Amino acid sequence: MTLHPTHNLSVEELDRQSVFHPFTALAQHNESGPRIMVSGSGVRLKDRAGREYIDALAGLWCVNIGYGRTEIAEAVDRQLRELPYYHSFASMGTEPAAHVADRLKRMLPGEMGRVFFGLSGSDANDTQVKLVWYYNNLLGRPRKKKIIARKRAYHGVTVAAASLTGLPVLHNAFDLPIDRILHTVTPHHYWNAEPGMSEEDFARHCAAELDALIEREGPDTVAAFIAEPVMGAGGVIVPPKGYFQEIQKVLKKHDVLMIADEVICGFGRLGRMFGCEVFGIEPDMVTVAKGITSGYVPLSASVVSEKMWQVLMEESRTLGVFGHGYTYTAHPVSCAAAMANLDILEGEKLADRAAETGAYMQTLLRETFEGQPAIGEVRGIGLIAAVELVADPAARTPFDPALKVAGRVAARALDNGLITRALPNGDSLAFSPPLVISRADVEACVERLAASIAGVRDELIRDGVRIA
Amino acid sequence: MTLHPTHNLSVEELDRQSVFHPFTALAQHNESGPRIMVSGSGVRLKDRAGREYIDALAGLWCVNIGYGRTEIAEAVDRQLRELPYYHSFASMGTEPAAHVADRLKRMLPGEMGRVFFGLSGSDANDTQVKLVWYYNNLLGRPRKKKIIARKRAYHGVTVAAASLTGLPVLHNAFDLPIDRILHTVTPHHYWNAEPGMSEEDFARHCAAELDALIEREGPDTVAAFIAEPVMGAGGVIVPPKGYFQEIQKVLKKHDVLMIADEVICGFGRLGRMFGCEVFGIEPDMVTVAKGITSGYVPLSASVVSEKMWQVLMEESRTLGVFGHGYTYTAHPVSCAAAMANLDILEGEKLADRAAETGAYMQTLLRETFEGQPAIGEVRGIGLIAAVELVADPAARTPFDPALKVAGRVAARALDNGLITRALPNGDSLAFSPPLVISRADVEACVERLAASIAGVRDELIRDGVRIA
Repeated sequence: MTLHPTHNLSVEELDRQSVFHPFTALAQHNESGPRIMVSGSGVRLKDRAGREYIDALAGLWCVNIGYGRTEIAEAVDRQLRELPYYHSFASMGTEPAAHVADRLKRMLPGEMGRVFFGLSGSDANDTQVKLVWYYNNLLGRPRKKKIIARKRAYHGVTVAAASLTGLPVLHNAFDLPIDRILHTVTPHHYWNAEPGMSEEDFARHCAAELDALIEREGPDTVAAFIAEPVMGAGGVIVPPKGYFQEIQKVLKKHDVLMIADEVICGFGRLGRMFGCEVFGIEPDMVTVAKGITSGYVPLSASVVSEKMWQVLMEESRTLGVFGHGYTYTAHPVSCAAAMANLDILEGEKLADRAAETGAYMQTLLRETFEGQPAIGEVRGIGLIAAVELVADPAARTPFDPALKVAGRVAARALDNGLITRALPNGDSLAFSPPLVISRADVEACVERLAASIAGVRDELIRDGVRIA
Repeated sequence: MTLHPTHNLSVEELDRQSVFHPFTALAQHNESGPRIMVSGSGVRLKDRAGREYIDALAGLWCVNIGYGRTEIAEAVDRQLRELPYYHSFASMGTEPAAHVADRLKRMLPGEMGRVFFGLSGSDANDTQVKLVWYYNNLLGRPRKKKIIARKRAYHGVTVAAASLTGLPVLHNAFDLPIDRILHTVTPHHYWNAEPGMSEEDFARHCAAELDALIEREGPDTVAAFIAEPVMGAGGVIVPPKGYFQEIQKVLKKHDVLMIADEVICGFGRLGRMFGCEVFGIEPDMVTVAKGITSGYVPLSASVVSEKMWQVLMEESRTLGVFGHGYTYTAHPVSCAAAMANLDILEGEKLADRAAETGAYMQTLLRETFEGQPAIGEVRGIGLIAAVELVADPAARTPFDPALKVAGRVAARALDNGLITRALPNGDSLAFSPPLVISRADVEACVERLAASIAGVRDELIRDGVRIA
């Protein structure tokens, strides 16, 4: 990168004075400034001060193949030199877009129809909202428009996508959700099941809650249900046994579309290529992003079933041009990166590797933390996990949110060379490392997290906080 | 790009069977398939059949530096090898993001505060909507939330951005606009001024219409006004003389924020770096995309004034984390591409070049088309222009939309090796070439457009359509 410094400020100072950081405490950033990352290789990152970290969060749940894979750089370089951009409006197209769409359609479970490209999970879910409304208008069901998501879901941050998201920090002060977006119960057995309820019973309870909501609203007004196979940023919540089977019975009964948000789960993280395969989800629409390019270059997609496509396509004969699309829909450079990334994911069988290393990680996390003081729940599947801290595990009493326990653990972990993330609800720390992580590095992550938790525990005890 | 063909279909067939094309007639595409572009250099593109085109639309108004600039490929390659991705949540950051934010803040007119990065004009305008609502909540003005855009405006396609857009094709069957988004009059003198009205009178008329709308809605409910300096996709509409001065008087009177959508105008197209400079716009918020990377890698930004930033920042002390942000906000690869692109734009003084070549293009278009049969208006500034066809220029009678006159001209132009675009309202053909276009290529564009218009005119006459 060529730089034209017009003043002698440090990068940190330039950042502090000019970057509006997402999901950041703005005043605090204005005082402390940023931590600048400069290089990465495999699961490791280095910052400007030369400190090294294991990135147990794969960026933001996205760098599935790990950092530093030159195959992506090579594919991107070829495409940038050949054709750096062309659009796909008005039947125009490029080769990489056609190849990725074809490949994705064949990779996904179920009978998928067409692939609509975007750049982020947010824009892809925003597109899904528009498609659901459009589709039901074409079918002559103008009232069937409501979309049901779940509390603690994460589906992105545009006005419509943030409405689907079920986290207060994305709604408060933003006047969200917008009309016609509803939220049902979080399928989190640990917090939401009645005492003694089995996973199967809890799954039926969740489905009954959804059914009751649809009945209350009127089935002729409910168009779609959207779910992450495993809820990611909302807490890494693995659904209880039988959950999606029970949910899908309700959806079928009321003719409600199933949208699978595979943004985090897709491309190997759960030990299969897609979360839908793990849980027997039969989606009408699938949202993908993150792992499709491992974050190297932005790309997302909204995929619709062949059944929906036939309606959209046939009705276009009278309706005319489909009036939606991004300038960068099907960007050839993004698609070239995706092809190289999928070559690595498939060629190195990274979903299988995630299943193996993931099983090891899940066992090690449980052995290390379960039954320890202040440990509420260790949960996860494949290479995604969370450790939740509570003040009293036996009584399931959470910590006072003002103590910011998980935030303090994450900060201490950073000092210990481990990047994890304090999730926005409760006190959970997330693991979602690159799928290429070794067993030794999993051990290092768990060890560093244990030391960080122990450190914060000692600090809390010193401060007189009661911990059981 | 490594390909893994599992069947022997052509790229065209893969596309036809798997890509959901934006702004495309879906059934027609299903029958005819795509036109696949494979390479580009300067203002020229080549398709898979070896046909060459002059791209007079710079992709979709975005490839400002032209195709094939290896400097971008080199900058991207370096960044991809060093650090292909890291996020900017929770005060994390990367060097390229800090540099682009700093540079942009210094380039933009007015006292800008902070730069929030996204990937597309759509997500950046979606962010602006959220920021306007958030800001007024922080100021304790929960009712001051409505945003006024203009009919025929183009601000993108997310649920919120498409609501700002003022084109029926983006609203019909999508149930848009959402609540709290309103539209005022298009400042198009040719179609909307009363006979004999001067440009200045028409500008005052537009401002009076805006004022009346704000009064009707209640000034305490209107938060912001959004405008492209020159309306792009809605018709290449240059505002009448004095327009923004009159508009800004109304905005100041009612304490309404001014959002400048510089997605098309920004980065040199009008002969200055930003459209705001051309028209004396004093924005509170600026949206940029397209030209910031010339489309090579996706990047956009929502920029807020220092005054707004101070409120957002100070209030965060009580409100906590700012709950908005994309995984790919401040993507280091996008930002590396932006730095290399801005080096070219500034180093080669492409805004000045756009002013010079643009003046030539505007003159040549007017000399060639004004006063000719079926030519309604030739309009534009710098390197953006439109030629509008009408059935009777003297009476200003448009063609029957069913004739799709502009669409037929654009299709014929393609056959003549010219990429232009039929805009969605009326029968206008757009020019918005890379800023590096030569005078000889401008001449070739105008010549090919003239031949294409003449061809369609002959066709219409043969079909018995009356043309004056």
